Amino acid sequence: MNERETVRFIREILGSPGPDVLVPVGDDSTEFRFPSPDVLLTVDSLYEGVHFDLTICDLYDVGYRSATAGISDIAAMGGEPLCVLLSIAFSQAPTRAEVLELLGGLREVSTLNGCELVGGDVCRSPGGLALTVTVAGSPPEGGPVLRGGAREGDLIGVTGYAGDSAAGLFALQHRDDARERFPGLVEAHLRPKPRVLAGRILGGCGVSAMEDVSDGIAHDIRDISSESGLGCEIQADLIPVSNELEELAREASIDPLKWALSGGEDYELLFTAPPGRFEGVLKTLKKLEIPASRIGVMSSAGERCLAVTARGETIELEGMGYEHFA
Amino acid sequence: MNERETVRFIREILGSPGPDVLVPVGDDSTEFRFPSPDVLLTVDSLYEGVHFDLTICDLYDVGYRSATAGISDIAAMGGEPLCVLLSIAFSQAPTRAEVLELLGGLREVSTLNGCELVGGDVCRSPGGLALTVTVAGSPPEGGPVLRGGAREGDLIGVTGYAGDSAAGLFALQHRDDARERFPGLVEAHLRPKPRVLAGRILGGCGVSAMEDVSDGIAHDIRDISSESGLGCEIQADLIPVSNELEELAREASIDPLKWALSGGEDYELLFTAPPGRFEGVLKTLKKLEIPASRIGVMSSAGERCLAVTARGETIELEGMGYEHFA
Repeated sequence: MNERETVRFIREILGSPGPDVLVPVGDDSTEFRFPSPDVLLTVDSLYEGVHFDLTICDLYDVGYRSATAGISDIAAMGGEPLCVLLSIAFSQAPTRAEVLELLGGLREVSTLNGCELVGGDVCRSPGGLALTVTVAGSPPEGGPVLRGGAREGDLIGVTGYAGDSAAGLFALQHRDDARERFPGLVEAHLRPKPRVLAGRILGGCGVSAMEDVSDGIAHDIRDISSESGLGCEIQADLIPVSNELEELAREASIDPLKWALSGGEDYELLFTAPPGRFEGVLKTLKKLEIPASRIGVMSSAGERCLAVTARGETIELEGMGYEHFA
Repeated sequence: MNERETVRFIREILGSPGPDVLVPVGDDSTEFRFPSPDVLLTVDSLYEGVHFDLTICDLYDVGYRSATAGISDIAAMGGEPLCVLLSIAFSQAPTRAEVLELLGGLREVSTLNGCELVGGDVCRSPGGLALTVTVAGSPPEGGPVLRGGAREGDLIGVTGYAGDSAAGLFALQHRDDARERFPGLVEAHLRPKPRVLAGRILGGCGVSAMEDVSDGIAHDIRDISSESGLGCEIQADLIPVSNELEELAREASIDPLKWALSGGEDYELLFTAPPGRFEGVLKTLKKLEIPASRIGVMSSAGERCLAVTARGETIELEGMGYEHFA
């Protein structure tokens, strides 16, 4: 399909817009009605060869992952994602099947999380496939949860398991039996689930700071620390890792802590809360069957960001985690 | 600079956010306060090697052009652009000078048009430089002007001159004296001005349909025609072309109509209005020193989209204009 045909086909796929879409795809801009004039906005790009490799994933996975990052960003503010815009660049004219697959993945994760694809752009890319997804949403009633709100002594928690996405990527790259032996890790990498419900719960129960784990716990807790003007200490043995991750780490002779601290794209939520409130937060999440764990504590302004292992070794978090220009 | 340093440097450049920025760059999402819950949203991408060539333009131009397209999309709805998000991918770690130049161009066109850079994303690209700009804004009070509102007999108008951007690109590619001999064309290509004021005026005085000229008049009037379920007839000799374009066309032995009909990225506004209202619209624009011309008429549903030359030749508009997968 050429550019015009692709846009027309996308309009066909989208069908009738929801009630909040005042002007749907097909005009110069989209018009969307938010619940309030205060709107959360975020944008993330995925490039073939940097963010994904089509020899180990398919277009459905790429579409899925392209929207997860932005939806997760809204979740990390305690907000409600509402609509998505997709700018997509193909290295050559796409087929209907390719567009269907990409949009299928994107729309699965969007729809599951209550947001609608409302607009975008189609063009040619000079290299591989590239997608940029803008997500807009509503902040929670009490205002969004920021990275910079942590206080000294606040406990640090994280939802779910750490490092599964990075371990899943490793399995896909190095093991022919990845999908059979490590289905949970592969799923975590190819179809990461943003924590929208958890984010809204956490936003509503007084956590002091929050961020999604997109570049690894080590990297992301440093963001919270630096924005809050504090240090932090992570207890490495408290970081929750999955059985599959431990098994793969053992078989590959890799320290599971490497994935747990530096593995990005888990899209779990990292948060801090005052000690008096922390257990209540975990209990609330548990009632909704959202796993969450305490993994450390915020230290004072002069302190560094550290992880301490069960054997008492100290690991500097500075410089760990995903870095695009490493 | 690595990714983190780049983001930190961008935050430094941006300085203090405006009063409507509730959460500025540096958190998971931006929070922006719009005047109303109805928000216009649009996204456009620019890829090195597809949309720009760094041998004939500089990074300031690229930054400038990256935001023009989206601002122009909001203008084409009669709306007011308010904020911009930039996702930027560098093929290698950028220098401070490069980031300053890119953001300088982007912020010039944004600021001139009343909108603020409020968020974004920095990553590595597998190929050249790539930018995706999301622009959000407010619709006019009476609701946005759509492409599909034209009626049979409505007259077709366009602001400014047609084809200058395409002619400017040609001059930059083929003439060593481009910048001295054809400064207006070069400026039109490298620093295209979105028609925000004109869009708001047009949105407020009852035009029936509007679209910005991003893919060429031939292409864009077809959009208005097909969305309105009509045909159209453009009088080719009425399409306003600049003296510089005519001069370059003569010297290069090119039919100026080629640029006037098929040249994209002019970001002028193409609009339709009922005959009884049309002259009043042009007068209102003239008072504000915004040039605009009548160039044709919308024909009935069964008709094709045509341009008729002064010599009575008929040109089919179907298939003309910029197409990414031509």
